[in-house]
Order: sequence, then C-alpha cells, then structure tokens
Amino acid sequence: MSLPVIHRGFAIERIYPTTPARVFRALSDPQKKRRWFAEGEGFEVESYTLDFRVGGFERTRFRPTGGPPMTTDAVYLDIAADERVVFAYAMTVGGAPMSSSLGTMELTPTASGTRLLFTEHTAFVDGQDGSEGRREGSLGLLEALAKELETHG
Amino acid sequence: MSLPVIHRGFAIERIYPTTPARVFRALSDPQKKRRWFAEGEGFEVESYTLDFRVGGFERTRFRPTGGPPMTTDAVYLDIAADERVVFAYAMTVGGAPMSSSLGTMELTPTASGTRLLFTEHTAFVDGQDGSEGRREGSLGLLEALAKELETHG
Repeated sequence: MSLPVIHRGFAIERIYPTTPARVFRALSDPQKKRRWFAEGEGFEVESYTLDFRVGGFERTRFRPTGGPPMTTDAVYLDIAADERVVFAYAMTVGGAPMSSSLGTMELTPTASGTRLLFTEHTAFVDGQDGSEGRREGSLGLLEALAKELETHG
Repeated sequence: MSLPVIHRGFAIERIYPTTPARVFRALSDPQKKRRWFAEGEGFEVESYTLDFRVGGFERTRFRPTGGPPMTTDAVYLDIAADERVVFAYAMTVGGAPMSSSLGTMELTPTASGTRLLFTEHTAFVDGQDGSEGRREGSLGLLEALAKELETHG
C-alpha cells in the first residue's frame, strides 16, 4: 500500500541586476543551464540533457557525493520568451519515486533589473514532507543562477 | 507583457463500488480512458492518444460544440499500479495557453469499494482564475468515470 501523498507549495522571489532576456537565456541555453542547475557543489553529474521547448524534456542523472543516485526528469509545459516558463518534474532517489512538482518561473522587469518569482507545488509520494528541503534547495539554485549571471556574459 | 500567473488548487474525493484494479484499468487503458475522459457530451474529439507510462504523453484535440479548438497535453510523472497516478498537463484554447496543472489520483480500497482522491494544482496563465470551472469539470469527469465503471466490465 502506498503512503498518502503529501501536497505542499512555496514561492521564492529574487531580483537579478540584469535584463529578463539574459535571465531567460540562462534558463533556456543547455550549456548555461547545465552549469548553474546541474553542476552544483557537492553533486556529481552523470548526464544532463535539455530540450527547451513545450513538450521537451530536461533529464538530469546525478548523485550527492557519497550518496545514492538521483534523477530529475522535467518536461516543459508552457514557455513565453523572456517572461515565463512552466514545467513539471519528477524526482527519484535510489531508484524510488520521491516527488512530482509543478514549477513556474515568472520574469518581470524592474527598475533595478529582473524580478524572478519561482512558485512550486509538489506531491511528495515517499511518505516524507520534503518541502523545507525543497525550498532550501531552490534558494540554492537561485543563488547559483545569480553567480552564473555575474560570471558568464 | 504577460499577466501574473494565478495559482490555485482543489481536491475531490469520490467512492466507486468496485476494486482499485478496475478503477486503475479505466485510467490506464486507452480505449476506456478515451471513452469517459475525452468523449463527453457537448465535446467533439478530433484526436486522442494515450501512452500510459512514466514520461509518456496523453494528447487530446477537441472542441466544445460550436466553440474554439482546445488541446490538453498531459505527461505521466509517477505511476504505482492500482494505487497512484501523478501527471502534469497543459491546456490551450484557440491556440493560446490557458493553464498548466499537476494532477494526482490516489486509489485506496475501502469497505464499499475504492476511494479516489483527486488533487490538482494549477497555474492559470491567461489572467483568469479558472479554478471554479476546473473543479466543476473535474467533478463531471469523475461522474463520467462512474458511468464507465457501471457500463463496461
């Protein structure tokens, strides 16, 4: 018998001192996205592919150093260039399903740059409420995106 | 400029007087699913395909009688036979994106049959809060599933 699914959501806002077009490029260019999204400190990337179009997949095979193999398989549901990306993704740990999520990124120009609003709703299927860890992981990814924008034109 | 995305969610519970295995079959068999999911009263189905496996798509092209062409493209994120189906889907109306959703169906055996718990979180991207209509549409689909289970072994 499966454990009941646990539904959780959160939203994070961050301002980047650059244009929406440059932020969008870091979300959509496979080389850039791999750099800030997949190749984080403490993670080993086995493979990464990105097919950035509606119905296309982004598949990441990785493991935390010394940890079990993990996968995230995302599919893009809705894309508005320089403005919006909506995607869904499933995560597995050691071959077992952990969660499925709906993620939305909205880019809005502001006086000082670009506001990115990330909203995620997750169905945790392994019996654990992983929402706090997921929120912290997402904060780390948005920080990695800031470094990507600082260091790569 | 895009309008802000509107995030909404709802849950619906329904009891069916049959086994989880039979309910799961109506969710996973393309012929059965097409009958209750796509071919509802007041809708004309142009095409329907179902590839029921993790990473597989379910694509429906249809229109309300006299209305604009609509599409729903779903992708399966997580499947546990007879127990759970998690999927994401995007809907368009007249070629324009309307929404992206995460849907979860959980099947639990009860004394009188099977409890189906359907939970949906939706990102509405057309500026309209369509959550009440989405909930009503989902109630209609779960009623159509009841008729499918009554009339087709």
